[in-house]
Amino acid sequence: MADLLVTGKYLVSIDDDHTIIDNGGLAITGDTITAVGPADELRGRYPGAEELYEPHGLIMPGLVNVHTHAAMACFRGLADDLELMQWLQEYIFPAESNLTGEVVYWSTMLSICEMIRSGTTSFCDMYLFAAEVARAAADAGMRAWIGEVLYDFPSPSYGELENGFACCEKLFATYATHPLITITLDPHAVYTCSPELLVRLGELAREKEALYVIHLAETEVEVATCLERYGVRPVQHLEQLGLLGPGMVADHCVQLTGEEIELMAERGVGVAHCPESNMKLASGIAPVPDMLAAGLAVGLGTDGAASNNDVDMFGEMSSAALIHKGSRLDPTVMDARTTLHMATRGGARVLQAGERIGSLEPGKKADCIVLDLHQPHLTPLYNPLSHLVYAARGGDVVHSIINGRIVMRDRQLTTVKEAEVFGAMDRISREIGKIKGNRS
Amino acid sequence: MADLLVTGKYLVSIDDDHTIIDNGGLAITGDTITAVGPADELRGRYPGAEELYEPHGLIMPGLVNVHTHAAMACFRGLADDLELMQWLQEYIFPAESNLTGEVVYWSTMLSICEMIRSGTTSFCDMYLFAAEVARAAADAGMRAWIGEVLYDFPSPSYGELENGFACCEKLFATYATHPLITITLDPHAVYTCSPELLVRLGELAREKEALYVIHLAETEVEVATCLERYGVRPVQHLEQLGLLGPGMVADHCVQLTGEEIELMAERGVGVAHCPESNMKLASGIAPVPDMLAAGLAVGLGTDGAASNNDVDMFGEMSSAALIHKGSRLDPTVMDARTTLHMATRGGARVLQAGERIGSLEPGKKADCIVLDLHQPHLTPLYNPLSHLVYAARGGDVVHSIINGRIVMRDRQLTTVKEAEVFGAMDRISREIGKIKGNRS
Repeated sequence: MADLLVTGKYLVSIDDDHTIIDNGGLAITGDTITAVGPADELRGRYPGAEELYEPHGLIMPGLVNVHTHAAMACFRGLADDLELMQWLQEYIFPAESNLTGEVVYWSTMLSICEMIRSGTTSFCDMYLFAAEVARAAADAGMRAWIGEVLYDFPSPSYGELENGFACCEKLFATYATHPLITITLDPHAVYTCSPELLVRLGELAREKEALYVIHLAETEVEVATCLERYGVRPVQHLEQLGLLGPGMVADHCVQLTGEEIELMAERGVGVAHCPESNMKLASGIAPVPDMLAAGLAVGLGTDGAASNNDVDMFGEMSSAALIHKGSRLDPTVMDARTTLHMATRGGARVLQAGERIGSLEPGKKADCIVLDLHQPHLTPLYNPLSHLVYAARGGDVVHSIINGRIVMRDRQLTTVKEAEVFGAMDRISREIGKIKGNRS
Repeated sequence: MADLLVTGKYLVSIDDDHTIIDNGGLAITGDTITAVGPADELRGRYPGAEELYEPHGLIMPGLVNVHTHAAMACFRGLADDLELMQWLQEYIFPAESNLTGEVVYWSTMLSICEMIRSGTTSFCDMYLFAAEVARAAADAGMRAWIGEVLYDFPSPSYGELENGFACCEKLFATYATHPLITITLDPHAVYTCSPELLVRLGELAREKEALYVIHLAETEVEVATCLERYGVRPVQHLEQLGLLGPGMVADHCVQLTGEEIELMAERGVGVAHCPESNMKLASGIAPVPDMLAAGLAVGLGTDGAASNNDVDMFGEMSSAALIHKGSRLDPTVMDARTTLHMATRGGARVLQAGERIGSLEPGKKADCIVLDLHQPHLTPLYNPLSHLVYAARGGDVVHSIINGRIVMRDRQLTTVKEAEVFGAMDRISREIGKIKGNRS
């Protein structure tokens, strides 16, 4: 028995054999994929199932966004084209000091609307007021890994550091058995967290069997600061603290040496590659082809909309595929298959969820999206994988299913009332806009 | 009297004062903008005019794509992730040798559909069977600069070189007084055209007062070849031939020295910057911030869809704004205003059409687009220019007007029957696909 068949012109499974099925589809029972195959075969096998059929549709796994600060959508375009420290100190930090749980809830919901509309079905989020991030994701039916960001100084969210630990404990208790939400432990970075804090969170992560999510080696300044304070670069600092290991999600990793890449691969660390944010903030270009060659798990992330300025993983795939070619003068690196893998199974592996998501295979959770190929910019079609990376956009996604539930149908969201989100953001952005005198 | 008012939430004029009018609009009489101002004022002044009102609309000049091979849309995704020479020799050249005028007409029309849908109102095209490119642009009501590409060897289009000149003469005669189509002279490049051919076309360009469009300094190989043959780099080669001057549109210009940039600025050459194609083919990253600092006219182009793989100028703006920040480690270069200027007035200046297009000002031709801002990925809005470069996508364009005529209304094209284009491309791509054994 199946509850739902999703069928179309192509099914791109992202399985080990790179299977593409013409006139293919999948069958979903409850939250799980029960069969993948030719649409006609599925129809014969599951005669009673509802069918979501898209004649020009391409069915593929939902995209996995491994690094976001979803709530930062409320700062989208507030301040661009600035030096990082000016951006943070004059705009982002003052704005964040006024954050409330309500702002975080609605701003996260705004990013979730954008993510669902552009094909993302899972995201890994680090931010303040993480309980509100989790509440938004749960309300929207989105799969998410969520952590409260911790650092040495008081937080606008929980206040003194000790409260941060209580906050984490409460998150673990609340979402212990939730089908979609997984709680993570999120030290902000090596330059904002003492070695003691890093280690304590590491111990807690082991105890909870939780991911340990940290910004790592994002900028030259971070590396210089770490060298000055601890005499070693950030990766070595974490190694000396005994923290490098499977379950660590290292965000950005722009400034890595060859030795650091080898060490991280050996330790089983996962990396979140965020090419657009790294370019926009002028952090540089992460050595991703070298990471992949070393066997590192690498997923793709958008970072927050304040430094991107969108959370569209299709745009991110295109950027990832292009910048490494351009900067290495090699048109063969980051080919379409590699890039698409990074945005799906690569991300699932980074989140240690490779058994559950990232490809369309029987037994996996039913997270899938359908693109409408019948559009000028996707015509003609010689190679579906090429289109997905180099020509498709988030707006081409017409249906989205997460955990077996249709969350978008014909570009209408079914789990979120967008009018409410727009209304809330209108109020919220008026307040935030006051910290800024002029637009220009 | 005005025929049409276009009104919305913001009008971004791209005039010298960077004017943005809240609740603004423009009045169009025939093919010309007759007034720009607050919508209410325009309504009072032109009571009888039809009004195209978009409540959440942002009105801006149509984008100017200064370098395309529109017909190459038929090769979109045929072959990616390959070395340039393998791509050209194993895929593109064999496919082009089978081209016909009919294929070029429909494939150009396909690109035009995509261009209109993503906000482009003008393009500058170099290709084979240019008469068919021009016919498609004229049929679609699109503004275009079009040239037949010439080189030393026989062309699949006109055969022997001498016929190429006859072909150009015929184009000039046909379109001498056309309101939308301007004919250009297009030597392919310094490595495919003899000095004699380059000079002869230069003389003809002066005689016709036509633009001289050439691929220039695109790759390291081109520079090395030119040095080997002529003992100088490509820019110096053209200088020695007396060809550098206003009216030259130099496409790509990835491999330029500081002295070459100064010389080109002095001579008044215009540059077409094509960041996505340059990255995808691994040509490198053009020194655009240096060109702009030197006062060079720089416009933005997508190149053909075979090496991009789309012709969406919104994506191109985002890429242009990001890659220079990332490669120079400077977040302040290529800010939103500079990038947007490049895609509108910069392009108009390169095409020597700055008096006619590129901004919304009375007296200019009525080429404008309207974006719908009421979408999650464009919410909230603090700075319209930031959104246009970093967050908006081609699919956000809802209406497009070229030369006073509505060519897209509510995302429906009014001048092109898309079903016919899809039908033709289906036949054409089946033939082209035969040259390729396998997909993926």
